[in-house]
Amino acid sequence: MAKAIQTQVVKRCKSRDKCQTVIGRHVYGNLYGINPAVISNLDFIAETVVNAAIAGKMHILELIKRKFDAKDSPDRSGVSVIALIEESHISVHTWPESSYATVDIYSCGSEANPDTAFSYILEKLKPKEYKRYYADRST
Amino acid sequence: MAKAIQTQVVKRCKSRDKCQTVIGRHVYGNLYGINPAVISNLDFIAETVVNAAIAGKMHILELIKRKFDAKDSPDRSGVSVIALIEESHISVHTWPESSYATVDIYSCGSEANPDTAFSYILEKLKPKEYKRYYADRST
Repeated sequence: MAKAIQTQVVKRCKSRDKCQTVIGRHVYGNLYGINPAVISNLDFIAETVVNAAIAGKMHILELIKRKFDAKDSPDRSGVSVIALIEESHISVHTWPESSYATVDIYSCGSEANPDTAFSYILEKLKPKEYKRYYADRST
Repeated sequence: MAKAIQTQVVKRCKSRDKCQTVIGRHVYGNLYGINPAVISNLDFIAETVVNAAIAGKMHILELIKRKFDAKDSPDRSGVSVIALIEESHISVHTWPESSYATVDIYSCGSEANPDTAFSYILEKLKPKEYKRYYADRST
């Protein structure tokens, strides 16, 4: 996983033309009916985020991953993974007790493909149902 | 700032009732016409995120902050600040060369107030115009 994480800042998406336009695309969604064992596995979710970034041609700079307490069912702790990427961010938050997760893929620039990254996460988490939304984050 | 950042995981928003409902509210927006000096100031943006979390009754667990290269105008480097909060996440990304920033406040649970946190950031960044959107991230 570490190989995919860049340790130095090289660039970021910049305004692309004389009008100082920033292109920003945000794909986000709510995923229902996921196997709780899958979304309580912190390493698996972190690996999925890293590989989703690669699939979507995005570049991770830093990664936060955290498992939350679930005293009444310790094997079903929720997790959060957030990646700062050159292009903006990726996040996955999970609630295993509800078989539920949410995903945000927000990328600037025209080279990244947040939709592909979102689809990659769907393939890995295998929700029974999901809602996918698009938000324009451009100037 | 450090005082506001919790070093131990205490809890996270859990399903609130027997139906395993997760309440998730996401307020996000695009901010235009901001003073470039304000949104290239990494410490100021990080402090603003921390105080926005406090204003919105959210609890920061980890904070990523990063300044990006802007070789042609080093005093106008864009920044990104992302906070993992107990309740999900807060992010601010900026493009000083376009006087532009985007803000995401995503919180689970009924106690946090993401709208208040968003308004706090507006007060600090003082955009000439902005668009504010709401997304339901509940089950």
